Amino acid sequence: MWLLDAFPADRVAARYGFRPTQEWLDHVRLASARFGGGCSSSFVSPSGLVMTNHHCALDCIQKLSTAKSDLVQDGFYAKQEADERVCPGLELSQLTDVTDVTARVDGATRGLAGAAFRDALRAQLARIEGECRTGTELRCDVVTLYHGGRYHLYRYKRFQDVRLVFAPEVAIAFFGGDPDNFMFPRYDLDVAFVRAYEGGKPAKTPSYFGWSAAGAKPDEPTFVAGHPGSTSRLATVAQLTFLRDVALPESIAMLSEWRGALTELSGRGKEQRRITQKLLFGVENRLKAMKGRRRALVDAEVMAAKVAAEEALRRAASGDPAARAAWDAIADAQRAHRAIYAPYQLLEKGPYGFYATLFDHARALVRAAEERPKPSGERLRELSDAQLPLLERRLLSSAPIEPELESLTLGMGLVRLREVLGPDHPVVKKVLGKEDPRRLADRLVRGSKLIDPAVRKALYDGGRAAVDASKDPMIELARLVDPDARAIRKAYEEQVEAVETKNGELIAKARFAALGTSVYPDATSTLRLSFGAVKGWDEDGRAVAPITTMGGAFERATGNHPFALPKSWLDAQARLDLATPLNLVTSNDIIGGNSGSPVIDREGKIVGLVFDGNIHSLGGDYHYDAAKNRAVALHSEGIVAALDRIYGAKRVVSELGR
Amino acid sequence: MWLLDAFPADRVAARYGFRPTQEWLDHVRLASARFGGGCSSSFVSPSGLVMTNHHCALDCIQKLSTAKSDLVQDGFYAKQEADERVCPGLELSQLTDVTDVTARVDGATRGLAGAAFRDALRAQLARIEGECRTGTELRCDVVTLYHGGRYHLYRYKRFQDVRLVFAPEVAIAFFGGDPDNFMFPRYDLDVAFVRAYEGGKPAKTPSYFGWSAAGAKPDEPTFVAGHPGSTSRLATVAQLTFLRDVALPESIAMLSEWRGALTELSGRGKEQRRITQKLLFGVENRLKAMKGRRRALVDAEVMAAKVAAEEALRRAASGDPAARAAWDAIADAQRAHRAIYAPYQLLEKGPYGFYATLFDHARALVRAAEERPKPSGERLRELSDAQLPLLERRLLSSAPIEPELESLTLGMGLVRLREVLGPDHPVVKKVLGKEDPRRLADRLVRGSKLIDPAVRKALYDGGRAAVDASKDPMIELARLVDPDARAIRKAYEEQVEAVETKNGELIAKARFAALGTSVYPDATSTLRLSFGAVKGWDEDGRAVAPITTMGGAFERATGNHPFALPKSWLDAQARLDLATPLNLVTSNDIIGGNSGSPVIDREGKIVGLVFDGNIHSLGGDYHYDAAKNRAVALHSEGIVAALDRIYGAKRVVSELGR
Repeated sequence: MWLLDAFPADRVAARYGFRPTQEWLDHVRLASARFGGGCSSSFVSPSGLVMTNHHCALDCIQKLSTAKSDLVQDGFYAKQEADERVCPGLELSQLTDVTDVTARVDGATRGLAGAAFRDALRAQLARIEGECRTGTELRCDVVTLYHGGRYHLYRYKRFQDVRLVFAPEVAIAFFGGDPDNFMFPRYDLDVAFVRAYEGGKPAKTPSYFGWSAAGAKPDEPTFVAGHPGSTSRLATVAQLTFLRDVALPESIAMLSEWRGALTELSGRGKEQRRITQKLLFGVENRLKAMKGRRRALVDAEVMAAKVAAEEALRRAASGDPAARAAWDAIADAQRAHRAIYAPYQLLEKGPYGFYATLFDHARALVRAAEERPKPSGERLRELSDAQLPLLERRLLSSAPIEPELESLTLGMGLVRLREVLGPDHPVVKKVLGKEDPRRLADRLVRGSKLIDPAVRKALYDGGRAAVDASKDPMIELARLVDPDARAIRKAYEEQVEAVETKNGELIAKARFAALGTSVYPDATSTLRLSFGAVKGWDEDGRAVAPITTMGGAFERATGNHPFALPKSWLDAQARLDLATPLNLVTSNDIIGGNSGSPVIDREGKIVGLVFDGNIHSLGGDYHYDAAKNRAVALHSEGIVAALDRIYGAKRVVSELGR
Repeated sequence: MWLLDAFPADRVAARYGFRPTQEWLDHVRLASARFGGGCSSSFVSPSGLVMTNHHCALDCIQKLSTAKSDLVQDGFYAKQEADERVCPGLELSQLTDVTDVTARVDGATRGLAGAAFRDALRAQLARIEGECRTGTELRCDVVTLYHGGRYHLYRYKRFQDVRLVFAPEVAIAFFGGDPDNFMFPRYDLDVAFVRAYEGGKPAKTPSYFGWSAAGAKPDEPTFVAGHPGSTSRLATVAQLTFLRDVALPESIAMLSEWRGALTELSGRGKEQRRITQKLLFGVENRLKAMKGRRRALVDAEVMAAKVAAEEALRRAASGDPAARAAWDAIADAQRAHRAIYAPYQLLEKGPYGFYATLFDHARALVRAAEERPKPSGERLRELSDAQLPLLERRLLSSAPIEPELESLTLGMGLVRLREVLGPDHPVVKKVLGKEDPRRLADRLVRGSKLIDPAVRKALYDGGRAAVDASKDPMIELARLVDPDARAIRKAYEEQVEAVETKNGELIAKARFAALGTSVYPDATSTLRLSFGAVKGWDEDGRAVAPITTMGGAFERATGNHPFALPKSWLDAQARLDLATPLNLVTSNDIIGGNSGSPVIDREGKIVGLVFDGNIHSLGGDYHYDAAKNRAVALHSEGIVAALDRIYGAKRVVSELGR
């Protein structure tokens, strides 16, 4: 996950006999694009055509669906440019340039600690970003690298008119479902194409990736450009122990319980399946990821390596008293975190004790009423001027809210609140009174008018007076628990977060002093480039081959969800060359956020599209295991064959130059 | 959890100024009784009256209930002796004497290892028990103490005619339900009385506990006699790490998912609530216990103490090469266990991949058909002559089987099988074929005739020919997976269990050489005596008072399950002295299996009845924390007041001598 301005070209040259030039790297940067909130993508034609994963475009595909035309189930193809359909609210960003602002940031925080440190840091970052933000077509972010070892200012060009061009059926995009998620061999067509527009016309994108003539072969070097979200590879042993012993197990238990309940609800009927589908997918995906991470941390070798690395760094930093104390300060913060973990998760972070969209809306309304009259810098973070548009978009969204699902999740939340905090906890007592938690949830959901976006808008626009006067039961609940939620948030921010940030920065500087840029910084949702090769792995003595074929999908199909192929595939079977490569694995180091990343060869041509990692990649949050960690990608030949032979998407194929 | 023949009378004398004599200890032994499979109880009158917990007698209470007369909901009181109702299949055992047979056992296994060691040990234990077992009124068990450091032969008198005398409503027996389980303050009346009969008449039981005139006061010394089930306090650090990192988290995730599904199913209607109630209670109880145990093992101080104790013992054993190697051998076995844990749990141990009573029956039939023709000593353990009666009782039981619940649990099991082993695992492929796991579960449950005990009996009596000829789909499933299940069981027994037993014994002998009987052996479901005192504890700086009152129950009541008091209590409120003590906590060291244990004072009088432990007692599986680990008990005065003023059970009260 190398920075494009600190790429180890020498190492690549030594290993693969190919030295990327700065020109090559600049081209990769400009042909890549951040996709929406948390995905990656790339320009694949000079006319703004963009390739990403189906699961990255799913939000758009859902929004364009109606009861009569379900594009998620049926797929979509715009036969002509005029048929391309605007994705509401979707934005792409292209990284145009990078400036090092470390000295300016360090100057502002030097000598400070605790709340003063945090406030000075926040103010300086806002100042630097503010100087740069010159229009709606440009976005500026100060990026914290190496946990504060470096600060860079990133400038992005924004594309805010993005239209859907092609998406296959979800049945093939997510073929194998939860059982095959994070697994390989794999047979998915998790691809979608959209197009960036400017001034109502397809955008001109001279920096784009061409399409490989034959795609990747085993052992061929591969490069992956994308926006890995976050990793914790530089976390201290105390932080990893907290994750291993507290955060991950608690999340796994909670998600497992949700999974059981949602699956059971989903099985009651077609309508129940529809309303639970999205949440259940999210829960299962997250659950599998958390389990994989936990498994990495209970691997004795992984933890031993972490302990050894930390000891080495502590020795290297032994001349610096502040850095020396930093590890112990972070360990103390973990103890503090243990003590407040449950109420923080239940009342504020999740807030899992009140797990319902209607509650989220109610809390947003209550807090907005209280915070908006304050100056931006004194508000809760998510209500600052910079964040308000995001909050408004969510709050006023017309996305449907399902009362049956709301009752279920809120009821589970309230049961959990009582279970974890105990029936005698003051918050539990004032929330539940003498009521049964599930019946209370039903009553709140049925009684709340916040299901109507117009009601939310009126309360939001009405400000404090309107919200204070509201008798909506969900608003009343949010108001009732807000003092407790704010108090536990304050405890977390002061006792845990501030200590971790300040001391993490000290450790980061010590590491930077010892190792420089010879290791890459933890992922931060910013553009990175990874090098690797098409390569299987050894699974308990069994060799996993790196490439699957379209024929394999037909062999694996059972006719039953999640192994049911769509009709388009069954109809096209005779027209296909079943030996066409469909999916592959590479040794590129990726993580969540890399979904939609192009896989390119040394010539900068598309040979694949990352859509997942294998089960060993889940430990990638903490360490990269070259022997087993693999990116899972579509093969470029499989994409073209499907577009051409199954979907008849000739227009896209020819735009790709095939 | 002291042995009654190695009780530290001096220590008790030094702490409490009271030295129990051997006569006192013998009386305690004879007035105590093991209750059914896994509980404790005591004789409380000379005419066979026995006191235990409601939750220990629940199986009997359920079996005596009908659609018209639900004794679980409504409670039961036999106004006269003739009304006392036989508990089907319930047995009490009274420990009559104990012989040390360590030398005979050691002689048989000396110099042996691996399978030879295991077989010789098993044969010698069977021989010693066989010599002693002289009739249906007597049972003999060789008890392994200190993990093989000592072997004792226990002789029990059996009472096989046991009749229900009194039980309150479940609403007050388990008042507070899952939220209050393992918690304190507490307000439960978890008591039941039964009577032992001999020759159709109340048994003469001259050794019984009298009833205290006033019950226990704060700081008063208390003794608890009972049958704690099992502890792992002498487990090695490698074994504890395995529990912390693998077994407990996997169980917690599985139980959480079941809890979610069962709760959701239970909420669908009254009938669904009825069929899920027992399983859901078991799942929630186990889940809370597992979470408590996991929390103890992720406590840095607990684990540090374990590491220090192990290092000290290794140093003490440094002159003994065999013992020295034992810790490493056990650590190797944990690695082996990790590798086979999932398939062992799914296919054999649980078998959680096929979690359904009908499957258990099918497997029992398939295995009985194969094993019964062999000599007893060569069969699977649970099919030996000694164990067959238990298996037959379960297999031929008329307890109802609920198809809706069976489909749910089997469906979840099959999904789990595919999820954990992967869709490509040979067992998954042959079990599922191309079917959807939940639909397959439905089909198997609906198609199986094993729901009828007569069908099971015919197959059992018909032996191999009948079972081989059966086309019952559940029998076919059990047959299909049996080779795989047996193979993984063999791997577990050889690579894990045998290594742990052999080397555990070596470590135990080293510990015994170093410490003798100055620590008590791990719990083994055999009679133990614990000393302690009535004592609250400090919970994060808040003092928890040791005794609650009947008035507290009324304050806590909400009218909603699980905080709804039964009508009998509401009606009686005016007649009660609300200051009467109801529940209390003591510092006695107990664990699961101690349920139903009498709490006695120095005069051997009943002052309470153990029914639970506090949340810190859950870590008691691994260590006893004197500062926080507490037994939760009924107060003797609360029992008498409820019998007298609420239930009008005058006959019982006067038999107790009050």
